[in-house]
Amino acid sequence: MTISTNSQPKDIVLTGDRTTGKLHLGHYVGSLKNRVQLQQQYETYIMLADVQALTTHFHTPEMLAGSVRQVALDYLSVGIDPDQATLFVQSMIPEIAELTVFYSMFVSVSSLRHNPTIKSEAAERGYEDLYYGFLGYPVSQAADITFCKATLVPAGDDQIPHIEQARKIVRRFNELYAPVLVEPQIIVGERLDGLDGSSKMSKSLGNAISLDSTTDEVRSRIRKAPTDPARVHKTDPGHPEVCTIYGYHRIFRPEDSGNIHDMCTRGTLGCAACKAKITGAIEEVLEPIRERRARYEQRPGDIDDILMAGTTKAREAARQTMGEVREAMGINYFARR
Amino acid sequence: MTISTNSQPKDIVLTGDRTTGKLHLGHYVGSLKNRVQLQQQYETYIMLADVQALTTHFHTPEMLAGSVRQVALDYLSVGIDPDQATLFVQSMIPEIAELTVFYSMFVSVSSLRHNPTIKSEAAERGYEDLYYGFLGYPVSQAADITFCKATLVPAGDDQIPHIEQARKIVRRFNELYAPVLVEPQIIVGERLDGLDGSSKMSKSLGNAISLDSTTDEVRSRIRKAPTDPARVHKTDPGHPEVCTIYGYHRIFRPEDSGNIHDMCTRGTLGCAACKAKITGAIEEVLEPIRERRARYEQRPGDIDDILMAGTTKAREAARQTMGEVREAMGINYFARR
Ligand code: SF4
Ligand code: SF4
Repeated sequence: MTISTNSQPKDIVLTGDRTTGKLHLGHYVGSLKNRVQLQQQYETYIMLADVQALTTHFHTPEMLAGSVRQVALDYLSVGIDPDQATLFVQSMIPEIAELTVFYSMFVSVSSLRHNPTIKSEAAERGYEDLYYGFLGYPVSQAADITFCKATLVPAGDDQIPHIEQARKIVRRFNELYAPVLVEPQIIVGERLDGLDGSSKMSKSLGNAISLDSTTDEVRSRIRKAPTDPARVHKTDPGHPEVCTIYGYHRIFRPEDSGNIHDMCTRGTLGCAACKAKITGAIEEVLEPIRERRARYEQRPGDIDDILMAGTTKAREAARQTMGEVREAMGINYFARR
Repeated sequence: MTISTNSQPKDIVLTGDRTTGKLHLGHYVGSLKNRVQLQQQYETYIMLADVQALTTHFHTPEMLAGSVRQVALDYLSVGIDPDQATLFVQSMIPEIAELTVFYSMFVSVSSLRHNPTIKSEAAERGYEDLYYGFLGYPVSQAADITFCKATLVPAGDDQIPHIEQARKIVRRFNELYAPVLVEPQIIVGERLDGLDGSSKMSKSLGNAISLDSTTDEVRSRIRKAPTDPARVHKTDPGHPEVCTIYGYHRIFRPEDSGNIHDMCTRGTLGCAACKAKITGAIEEVLEPIRERRARYEQRPGDIDDILMAGTTKAREAARQTMGEVREAMGINYFARR
C-alpha cells in the first residue's frame, strides 16, 4: 500500500469492522496495518460496527457485547492508540441512523440491487428473501462514512463498490440540498490468502490465523497448510505461484521473497524450512500484538473507558454534521430560537 | 366510529399526518374528529410526519418548515389541546430512525413488496425505480407507532395494511428479543368522498374543502359539486346513492339523512336547497375551527413553543423505549456503569 503524501491536512479517516468475532491476520494485512500508520497523520475514527453486524446476526445480538470488546481489544493490541484514534460504537451514534433514513429517500432500489455484494447475496438467497436492512447495507455504510465527513477509508478491495455507492450518495445529497458532505476515497489494503489456499482469509472459512494465536498455534497451523502438491521430495522443483506460503513471504518478508522463489523453483529449499521462515516472520508481527494484549487484558475496564470516551467524541462530530445536514435540507425548524 | 369503552386505562394513542400541505375535511372526518375525542381519555401523541413527507418530497424539503407549522395550526384549530395531546416533529426524534434501522434487519423485502400501498406504487412506477426509503415506508411507520408504545392508531382504512405490518414487526421483535413492544390497533375513521365524486377527498386531486376555507369558498365549492346527473328539474326523482352530497348528509347530518333520501327520491327536494343544508352543516363544523385558528394566528410563537415542548416530551418516551429495546437486544453495553 502507498499512502499518498500530498493529501490535504484536513483528511479524515473512517474505518471499522463488523463486530462478529475476533480479527485475524487478513484484517491486519488488509486494513489494521494501514490504520496504525494513518492515525499518526490524520484524524482517525475507528468504528465497532455492531449495527452492520446485525444485518446478518439479528438472531443473536447477545453475542455483540462480547464481540465489541473483543474487536476493541484487537485494535488496541495491533497498536491503535486511543490518544490518536477515536474508537466508537456504531449503535451509540443515532445520527448514523438518521442519515441512513435521509439518504434512503433518494437511493433507488435498483441501484442497490446492482451493487455486486448485494447482487451475489441476492443470487445466493433469491432476491425475494433478502432482508430490507441487508439490501440497504450500502446506504447505511454511506451514513457511517459521512457522519464524520471522512475523506479516506482504508479497506479491502471487496469494499470498492460500497465506497463508490457512498460517493454517489454524497454527490446526490450535495446536488439536491447544499454541498456539505465530502466524497470519500478508499485506500485499498493487501489481500491475504487463507491457509487452505482460498483467495481470502476468513474466520467463517476456518482458514485464518487469529491475532490472538499462540506461538504453538501459529506453528501448527502453518505446518498443516498445503503447499505446492508437486513437491514430494525437498529436491523436487516447486511452483511458488500456486503456494499460499510463498504469498505470505511476499507480504511478510518481501525483501527475501525473490530469493525464496529462486530456491523453491530450483529445489534447494524444503517446505518445512520455508515454513519455518514464514512462521518466524508472522511471529515477529504477532509478538508485539501479544504484549499489548496482555497489558490491556490486565485492565479490562480501560476498554470500556476508551470506547465511551471515543463514542462521546464521535457523537460531537455527528451532531456537527447533522446540524449542517438539517440546515442544508431546511429542516432545522427551530434553529434560530 | 365506535371507540370501545373497555380499553385498558394504559392505552396510548399515536397518530399524525405527513406535512405536505394543509389539512381538509376528509382528514377531519377520517381522523381529526376522533383525535379530539381520544385526547380526553388517553395519552395521545400526534406526529408532524415530516420524515414520511420526505419519502415523496425529498426534492423539496424546504416546503416542510411551512407545512409543519400549517398542519400544527390545523391541529390546534380543530381542537387538539396541547395540554392534553403531545404534538411533536418526527424528524426531531432520532430514536424513530434508530428503531427503523433495527426493524429493517428482520423485515423481508418480499413482505414489503406485498404491502398493497407499496404494490400499487410499484405497479405505477415499475418496481426497479422505487426509492429504498419508499419501499421501507411500513418499517418506518412501525417505528413511529412503537417508539411511544402506542396501542391505538386512529387512521383511515387505507392504513390497515401498514398497521398490520407494524403488528407483525412488533410480534417478531418480541419473539426474537424480549416482549417490550406493544401491538397497535387501528381505529378506522369514516371516509369522505371528494367534491368531484371520487372515492377520496384529497388535496392533490383538487376535490377537497380545506379546513381554512372561508364561508364563501365552502358555499361556492359545494354549489359547483356534481349531483345526480339524472335530475334536470327539481321534481325529477333522484338517486341519492350516486350523489356525493347525500354522502355528506350521512356524515355531517346523519339524523336527517333518511329524510333527505326520501325527499330526493320522491323529487320533493331540489339540489340547491339540499346543498344549502349541507353547506350549513359544514359551516357548523368549520366555524369553531376558524375561531380557534384566528386566536392562534395572533400568537404564531405559540405554535413553535407547543411543538418544542411536545417534541421534548415525545423524546422522553422515545428514550425510555429505546432503553428497553437495547436491553432486550443486549446491546446496552455500558448500561451498568
Ligand atoms: S518451498 Fe516454500 S514456496 Fe516452495 S512450495 Fe514449499 S512452502 Fe511453498
Ligand atoms: S337532492 Fe340532494 S341528495 Fe338528491 S341529488 Fe340533489 S344534492 Fe344529491
